Amino acid sequence: MKASVIGATGFAGAELVRLLLGHPQAEIAMVTSESSTGEMLSKMYPHLRDRLDKRLTSMQDIHTIADVSDVIFIALPHGHAMKIGKELRNTDVKIIDLGGDYRFKDYRVFEKWYKVEHVDPEAKAVYGLVELYRDKVKQAKLVANPGCYTTASILSLVPMLKYKLIKTKGIVVDAKSGTTGAGRSLKLGNLYESVNESFKAYGVANHRHTPEIEQAYSEFAGEDVIIQFTPHLLPLDRGIYATCYAELKDDVTDEQIENAFNEMYGKEYFIRVLGKGGVPELKNVRASNYVDLGWEVDRRTNRLIVMCCLDNLVKGAAGQAVQNMNVMFGLKEQMGLEALPIYP
Amino acid sequence: MKASVIGATGFAGAELVRLLLGHPQAEIAMVTSESSTGEMLSKMYPHLRDRLDKRLTSMQDIHTIADVSDVIFIALPHGHAMKIGKELRNTDVKIIDLGGDYRFKDYRVFEKWYKVEHVDPEAKAVYGLVELYRDKVKQAKLVANPGCYTTASILSLVPMLKYKLIKTKGIVVDAKSGTTGAGRSLKLGNLYESVNESFKAYGVANHRHTPEIEQAYSEFAGEDVIIQFTPHLLPLDRGIYATCYAELKDDVTDEQIENAFNEMYGKEYFIRVLGKGGVPELKNVRASNYVDLGWEVDRRTNRLIVMCCLDNLVKGAAGQAVQNMNVMFGLKEQMGLEALPIYP
Amino acid sequence: MKASVIGATGFAGAELVRLLLGHPQAEIAMVTSESSTGEMLSKMYPHLRDRLDKRLTSMQDIHTIADVSDVIFIALPHGHAMKIGKELRNTDVKIIDLGGDYRFKDYRVFEKWYKVEHVDPEAKAVYGLVELYRDKVKQAKLVANPGCYTTASILSLVPMLKYKLIKTKGIVVDAKSGTTGAGRSLKLGNLYESVNESFKAYGVANHRHTPEIEQAYSEFAGEDVIIQFTPHLLPLDRGIYATCYAELKDDVTDEQIENAFNEMYGKEYFIRVLGKGGVPELKNVRASNYVDLGWEVDRRTNRLIVMCCLDNLVKGAAGQAVQNMNVMFGLKEQMGLEALPIYP
Amino acid sequence: MKASVIGATGFAGAELVRLLLGHPQAEIAMVTSESSTGEMLSKMYPHLRDRLDKRLTSMQDIHTIADVSDVIFIALPHGHAMKIGKELRNTDVKIIDLGGDYRFKDYRVFEKWYKVEHVDPEAKAVYGLVELYRDKVKQAKLVANPGCYTTASILSLVPMLKYKLIKTKGIVVDAKSGTTGAGRSLKLGNLYESVNESFKAYGVANHRHTPEIEQAYSEFAGEDVIIQFTPHLLPLDRGIYATCYAELKDDVTDEQIENAFNEMYGKEYFIRVLGKGGVPELKNVRASNYVDLGWEVDRRTNRLIVMCCLDNLVKGAAGQAVQNMNVMFGLKEQMGLEALPIYP
Repeated sequence: MKASVIGATGFAGAELVRLLLGHPQAEIAMVTSESSTGEMLSKMYPHLRDRLDKRLTSMQDIHTIADVSDVIFIALPHGHAMKIGKELRNTDVKIIDLGGDYRFKDYRVFEKWYKVEHVDPEAKAVYGLVELYRDKVKQAKLVANPGCYTTASILSLVPMLKYKLIKTKGIVVDAKSGTTGAGRSLKLGNLYESVNESFKAYGVANHRHTPEIEQAYSEFAGEDVIIQFTPHLLPLDRGIYATCYAELKDDVTDEQIENAFNEMYGKEYFIRVLGKGGVPELKNVRASNYVDLGWEVDRRTNRLIVMCCLDNLVKGAAGQAVQNMNVMFGLKEQMGLEALPIYP
Repeated sequence: MKASVIGATGFAGAELVRLLLGHPQAEIAMVTSESSTGEMLSKMYPHLRDRLDKRLTSMQDIHTIADVSDVIFIALPHGHAMKIGKELRNTDVKIIDLGGDYRFKDYRVFEKWYKVEHVDPEAKAVYGLVELYRDKVKQAKLVANPGCYTTASILSLVPMLKYKLIKTKGIVVDAKSGTTGAGRSLKLGNLYESVNESFKAYGVANHRHTPEIEQAYSEFAGEDVIIQFTPHLLPLDRGIYATCYAELKDDVTDEQIENAFNEMYGKEYFIRVLGKGGVPELKNVRASNYVDLGWEVDRRTNRLIVMCCLDNLVKGAAGQAVQNMNVMFGLKEQMGLEALPIYP
Repeated sequence: MKASVIGATGFAGAELVRLLLGHPQAEIAMVTSESSTGEMLSKMYPHLRDRLDKRLTSMQDIHTIADVSDVIFIALPHGHAMKIGKELRNTDVKIIDLGGDYRFKDYRVFEKWYKVEHVDPEAKAVYGLVELYRDKVKQAKLVANPGCYTTASILSLVPMLKYKLIKTKGIVVDAKSGTTGAGRSLKLGNLYESVNESFKAYGVANHRHTPEIEQAYSEFAGEDVIIQFTPHLLPLDRGIYATCYAELKDDVTDEQIENAFNEMYGKEYFIRVLGKGGVPELKNVRASNYVDLGWEVDRRTNRLIVMCCLDNLVKGAAGQAVQNMNVMFGLKEQMGLEALPIYP
Repeated sequence: MKASVIGATGFAGAELVRLLLGHPQAEIAMVTSESSTGEMLSKMYPHLRDRLDKRLTSMQDIHTIADVSDVIFIALPHGHAMKIGKELRNTDVKIIDLGGDYRFKDYRVFEKWYKVEHVDPEAKAVYGLVELYRDKVKQAKLVANPGCYTTASILSLVPMLKYKLIKTKGIVVDAKSGTTGAGRSLKLGNLYESVNESFKAYGVANHRHTPEIEQAYSEFAGEDVIIQFTPHLLPLDRGIYATCYAELKDDVTDEQIENAFNEMYGKEYFIRVLGKGGVPELKNVRASNYVDLGWEVDRRTNRLIVMCCLDNLVKGAAGQAVQNMNVMFGLKEQMGLEALPIYP
């Protein structure tokens, strides 16, 4: 299976390359970068040295790339994938987009939150959260890989919403991300000194992952759900931690909560449910495709607190993309993703 | 003014020593430690070398300490201060306790959350959050210095509660602390490898700062307030960050919020209100007694989000204690506390 | 192939478990811990959750362990392995010791630097630095896995000594290690606050890895070599960085240096020679079995500077041990060790 | 005393502002930045909020700045200060340059290592390492503030060279710096992800601080000294750590070494000599003007190892500059610099 990575020099792109190099059934066809066309990727990312011998090409020649690829991963900022997707509509190549372009059922939601016109509104994309949409992913030709915050937030509360255990009003998701979530751009806020020994909120009340979370919550709740979502920046490389607050419906028991999580995730390879009182730690999932999830109930407030963490570059981006690829091509779902977390 | 520090070898105790050594009107009388009695404090904390020439004594001889001190700071785990306070009731020495013993109006709240009997329930302690209780602190002989999470959480929402701008139901405080907040004890969770590159919640639904925050909220709201409080552990040395969520009452405007903050904090030396859209960053207050506070309103959810940060060892412990001392002794409030934050 | 890990709860032991779980030909037989006998290892190291279902046993019953194992890894502080090695002398089980007990040709060197009597002086152990002693390792029943500082230091200069390019007097190795090198013991120096944002030397002029490095240098030089070795503690989890200084012999050219490195390491899977002017970075080898190595010549001083880095838990401990296992059992040398470094 | 800071938006410039704001005899006249002219400095560095109410001006109008200033600090990359110095030759304003322009007795050394022509070769500058050149600094109108690596390296070995205790050949200085030493420029190597959990050498065999160290060593040795100097990048904000290796002359005793250090530094406020076996730690000097220094002798190699650390932004830049100002203006040397290190 030949895979190409469009936008291989960002953190997610480089992580895709790392994972694909370790995948027993995948072979990297082409890697692209518009800013570093012609360079060796292993020069920019020397951790890949001796294992990848590819020069970066340009995505301008997307049809050539499609010709030599069974699957194309797009790891670019939003706005590019929809052009590529449209361009390759009538080819056989499968596409997995790691950006926001194809994540919304209604393209107008995208346009509203991302402030750009959607050029491919009639595309038929599948939302690639395999644990929730496995059957659709199997059939998909175009997959929208979920965002990092989104994956953690959705997995935290969807079982509660599906089984009607929590109220749909008043949900708060207080989320925290490692710095790779902010990308690799050269700005003061990304300097070591800006991040190290610090912590801050950002995108308060207007972060683009909000409507993506709400879309999944609403679908599983069967009604419109509006949430409060606040991201923060952690002084560490990798990881998403979502602390999710929701009011329990009357008389909901711990057992019902336990059952709902087990029902949905009990057989999932990548989701480890720690159960009531279990508190996940970011480091226990680092560099792996695992999601760790625990919960607690506060009977003083009748509120459920779900804590969920994952590695934003793996399950929150490249790993999930490979998981989607595996499902799309009928491979074993965890193929190439079995590496355990790196601790410490 | 002669000051002694009971429990000088913890992080808060050592920070008190640092601040007192730089205070123009204070002189350190005695420093104690039960586990290291007889040792030089500067041997355990070499950053103090050449500036402090004191051996640690035992607090067993508390009356001797009281005799040579105008003020005694107690920087011990809860349970000790109430014995000292009782013992020194009839002396002239002023006491500032950095622990939980005297923070509650109703000693039974202490007993319930801290699971120990209170041996000095009839003590008359003042809650030493100067910005809210300055006049009482002026008269106080015994001050309960607020907790670190507590200071940030209380300052965030008290203006909103006082001016009746938010609903008292459904408040969520999602808080994050640097590791010094966890103290200096030898346990696996405090090792470098456990904290570095990680993040986790703890004390979910049962942290002892909860009733302390609720006490202040209730007082200013004029009614009982129950909140959701969740602390988390940040991979950094110093800092508290509180992200506070509250539902606005109907028709509350941004201007009303702005006014309420300005009314209460506009003239405060140590509180810097960043205003609507302002997002505080932990590093901007590090090693200082400042509190930075910003807020945003989400009109989709009609919710107010207040973000507040401070250095847990300074404004959250030792600095606030010195501020209390200054007020109790009629000194300029910021004396010895004017050092700017260390950045980066 | 059945492998047991004696001392599975230290960092090196846990890393061995991680690597063995990902090894296609290995199966974990038993894991031991004297302090946590009876507990689940995955409870102490939750990153292993769902993948290892073993209780810790005691190493007291070493013959039972040997009976069910093809190979035993010993990841204990020095002093234990020599007892186990002696006890199992007449069994078939192969032993790989990650500690210092068997690393010296002359057991008296061990006794002098480690200050304990050697109880198994007549053992025939092979020094398991595969890149230098591959043929011996193939035949070995008992392998002494090299230390972390040692591996980096030896690999840096052995080619220079073998080809007589540097003087044997005046060698300085200034080395830096991440905190996992200090182990997982509960002491103040291992707390987050002691390590974070700090840096210090330790073991100056008396670190136990000194004679181990000198042993290899002397062997390849064909004469006794005495070096200056200084370790330092880095504020990060994993990694060894050795900066090695040696005076060049007269008229040695860059080309000779280049050739010597290529001659010895050009075909090595795990050694990546960056060449003249190449400067390795710790992060480029993290969580992998790679060694990155670069060098520079200062013609003002006629000195060669070799910089070498590796992950102390992988190539400096568990990874190297698995590499030894692979060679001892005739497997492909890189089996189970092909994972790329984790970046960032 | 009115002080202006040319280049106030770099890390050293901002640190100067912080220190001057806390200095009892200094007042900030003007602050400049060419890239942010017109902006409030406290907007770029919010830790200064509420304490500095100055807009950044341009240094183009240097005579206006000189007119309102008693002293001008120049915190710019090399190449600018020599123009300003020349321009202000005939004014009364005193100048303290934190860059390299005026550090060399022989301007041709500057030209050789910095690769630019010196436009002010006849200037009479004093090298502002107060502990060594206090009397000259008292008389100076133009002071060249030493570099950060330089200060640590020079202070480590000058007593040994002055008292002829070490050989002048074969000196190795292996130095490590926090990231603020690399400045605040927007490049990939300065991103959080590039620095965090990593470590590397840089400037091997060609760093510009080399000739500056050699100049001082040579002066105190009374002969030309050529050294090996290697800087490395530490994953932390602030700090320089120099590990210095020198061969002892025959029969030099520990006592002679001890005496030499005490002779030169025994009465220095800012130098804390930890003595034989003492190992300084970076964190113990953080955010202070202190220099901690310890040493060990290896009798196996007859080599002395001196370890020295300081905060690169304080004693290595802004603090040392203020110390120079104090001496130049006849103030108490430690005025405004008495703040203790921040620990942890």
